Amino acid sequence: MIEYRNLRIALLGAGSVGAQVADQLLTHADELAARVGARLELVGVAVRDVDAQRTTDIPRELLTADAESLILGSDIVVELMGGLEPARTLILQALTSGADVITANKALLATHGPELFETAEQVGAQLYYEAAVGGAIPIIRPLRDSLAGDRVTRILGIVNGTTNFILDRMDKHGETMEQALATATELGYAEADPTADIGGYDAAQKAGILASLAFHTLVPAEAVYREGITEVSLDDVRAARKAGYVVKLLAICEKIVDPLTLEAGVSARVYPALIPDEHPLAAVHGANNAVFVEAEAAGPLMFYGAGAGGIQTASAVLGDVVSAARRHVVGGPGVAESTHANLPVLPISAVTTRYQITLRVADQPGVLATIATLFSEHGVSVETVEQSVVSISEREGAAEPAATLVIGTHEASDADLAATVAALTTSTVVHSVTGVLRVEGL
Amino acid sequence: MIEYRNLRIALLGAGSVGAQVADQLLTHADELAARVGARLELVGVAVRDVDAQRTTDIPRELLTADAESLILGSDIVVELMGGLEPARTLILQALTSGADVITANKALLATHGPELFETAEQVGAQLYYEAAVGGAIPIIRPLRDSLAGDRVTRILGIVNGTTNFILDRMDKHGETMEQALATATELGYAEADPTADIGGYDAAQKAGILASLAFHTLVPAEAVYREGITEVSLDDVRAARKAGYVVKLLAICEKIVDPLTLEAGVSARVYPALIPDEHPLAAVHGANNAVFVEAEAAGPLMFYGAGAGGIQTASAVLGDVVSAARRHVVGGPGVAESTHANLPVLPISAVTTRYQITLRVADQPGVLATIATLFSEHGVSVETVEQSVVSISEREGAAEPAATLVIGTHEASDADLAATVAALTTSTVVHSVTGVLRVEGL
Repeated sequence: MIEYRNLRIALLGAGSVGAQVADQLLTHADELAARVGARLELVGVAVRDVDAQRTTDIPRELLTADAESLILGSDIVVELMGGLEPARTLILQALTSGADVITANKALLATHGPELFETAEQVGAQLYYEAAVGGAIPIIRPLRDSLAGDRVTRILGIVNGTTNFILDRMDKHGETMEQALATATELGYAEADPTADIGGYDAAQKAGILASLAFHTLVPAEAVYREGITEVSLDDVRAARKAGYVVKLLAICEKIVDPLTLEAGVSARVYPALIPDEHPLAAVHGANNAVFVEAEAAGPLMFYGAGAGGIQTASAVLGDVVSAARRHVVGGPGVAESTHANLPVLPISAVTTRYQITLRVADQPGVLATIATLFSEHGVSVETVEQSVVSISEREGAAEPAATLVIGTHEASDADLAATVAALTTSTVVHSVTGVLRVEGL
Repeated sequence: MIEYRNLRIALLGAGSVGAQVADQLLTHADELAARVGARLELVGVAVRDVDAQRTTDIPRELLTADAESLILGSDIVVELMGGLEPARTLILQALTSGADVITANKALLATHGPELFETAEQVGAQLYYEAAVGGAIPIIRPLRDSLAGDRVTRILGIVNGTTNFILDRMDKHGETMEQALATATELGYAEADPTADIGGYDAAQKAGILASLAFHTLVPAEAVYREGITEVSLDDVRAARKAGYVVKLLAICEKIVDPLTLEAGVSARVYPALIPDEHPLAAVHGANNAVFVEAEAAGPLMFYGAGAGGIQTASAVLGDVVSAARRHVVGGPGVAESTHANLPVLPISAVTTRYQITLRVADQPGVLATIATLFSEHGVSVETVEQSVVSISEREGAAEPAATLVIGTHEASDADLAATVAALTTSTVVHSVTGVLRVEGL
């Protein structure tokens, strides 16, 4: 057993994301220690009302109403309270006390970002906020680090899951805006007061954060032009589809030249817009998010995933916790490439997958039964069979009537499938096995 | 003018990626200095034959055949020579001398990765390799850092642009494998000897790198099961499409349980497979790459972009250079959030975009001319017009015959468009303006 040093993690807030972060820190403590090279000790969870938290799985002894005391002596502070105050004051206290801070608080960043970043820089602490935009999708780190040697020219983002869900319902199910909003509320994709989402306010905050990062320029949320989706009608969505477009609420951050002053500047704006239906963003359905980034050298890139949800957002928060923790460990970042898990690498024979097999068979009664028996004898379960008559040109030169069978299997092992194919090739009713391909991505 | 300290950058290799990296370091020196907080000084470019490099734009005085001397005294060494030796020896020398190293050399990582990472960890240096997989697509950093607090369960990657281009040609243009390969060669997407690509060797090296990183387990390239695309026929591709699938060469890294030993392990494999045509990877066309990652908490994520190309890969290399350089600068990482560019944030009136406007108009001769004149009077240029008769149900209650016009414009300013819409609403031939939406993503 390796002896690790401890890093003290303080959690502020125990809502849906906070509860998940606490749970993951406790459940996966050993695995996280191996990845970081230090134990991530959750020293406490600050909540407004300790008694009101009985419903969560967080151990009672970790709960405290005294956030300020909790922060003191912590190495890493995770702020998931939301809102401007006391989040701002507590983050400033944490940074000043030398702790690194992780936050998912987009409203706070959009409003007080410069103050927080300045304080962090002054004291040499780090402020991480991957979860503030795009939920689980890594977008802050790619923009800040991966594209740091490139020049971003434009970002088109679907950064609000609620509105994407609504517009997708209208497009796919022909629901009106009202109906789609009701569906979203019923399924938990919209809040009781959906104004922040459908009014575009949430997207505007995220646009401000993305634009600031991409263009190294302060873009507060109130400088972001904003239109919500309330004016989008089902007729609009239908007309768009007919013309080869899809309606999406886009957060657009762009470097443009002002046509009047001829001065280069940043435009950050949020509005419903048509995008061509072959654009990668057009295929972003449901409550998913995606950020399409165009950079001078890299060209177009897209980052796609779940834009919200407690556990998904917790993934982004924990990635930041691990990054922050690695900074505290000497030689820490090297741990990232370590092979501590040391799992066996399994051969292809251990893999089961589905297959699609194409056969040229004799076109005569009983063939299908013969072949089905042959599959089952080798332990391969058939899911679908499609038979088609061979076309005239293909039949030229054929001695007898032939048909093509396309057989989809359930999951089968490599060995069972190979044995089945071997048996098929020697069967008298099979002319040839013309294709054997695995099916993935199901 | 801010006075920055210098960081000495040595470049090994001046092929298509190396030449682009050199060019970007020289062209964007000031911008990079502002982002890093230090000047990135290209101190030399090591090449095998100095005289043979006359064709590139790299200044002659930077070229040297003496890589070993160049490395000594450099802060950051960028290895873009390719091949196993002398790349391995030079990287080890650079790390041992205390330099951080950036490489795009997937073959080297797949073969000697453990030795390189161990050396880096021992001496406290960093080894970056974002460009080794997926070209410009940030995938290493998201896997190493963003998902460091999560547990990856599966990766499905399209990581070889040549084979994706070929399979896409077969699917989209009905070309045979031979024809598609010829097209790829002609357009520069395939090398003279395409074995590494179409045999799946390149993809297998990348699968090994991704699997090692995702599962914290050493997965050398030779442990990756590999089938190339040479056996895929046009019939296979057509049959797949008919059955609702697309054929892609997939690099699959998965945590599975061996059905015989019931032991958990890693499977890394490369083969052509069918994926459902609604899967996000199915929409990856041409020579593009994409990596689809499934993690326990984050759920499905996808990273998409150009998988190769000199300038695109240079973007990833330079991101690593900036990351490495920021480590050398005190308080460096804070620079990432700086607003040094300080561009003006432009109002919506500075934005020009295309629009689609839907009008209900009188169904009578001359209407189109009237409306077209109105657009042109306000400086808005019409690109497309589509007229449709209003359906019976919609016409109920209509006093006179009406038609719907959907007008697509060229780029227009917000102000010009607003003036046009205002004029339309007061026009006698227009019953109503039923929709005004911007068009983006073109």
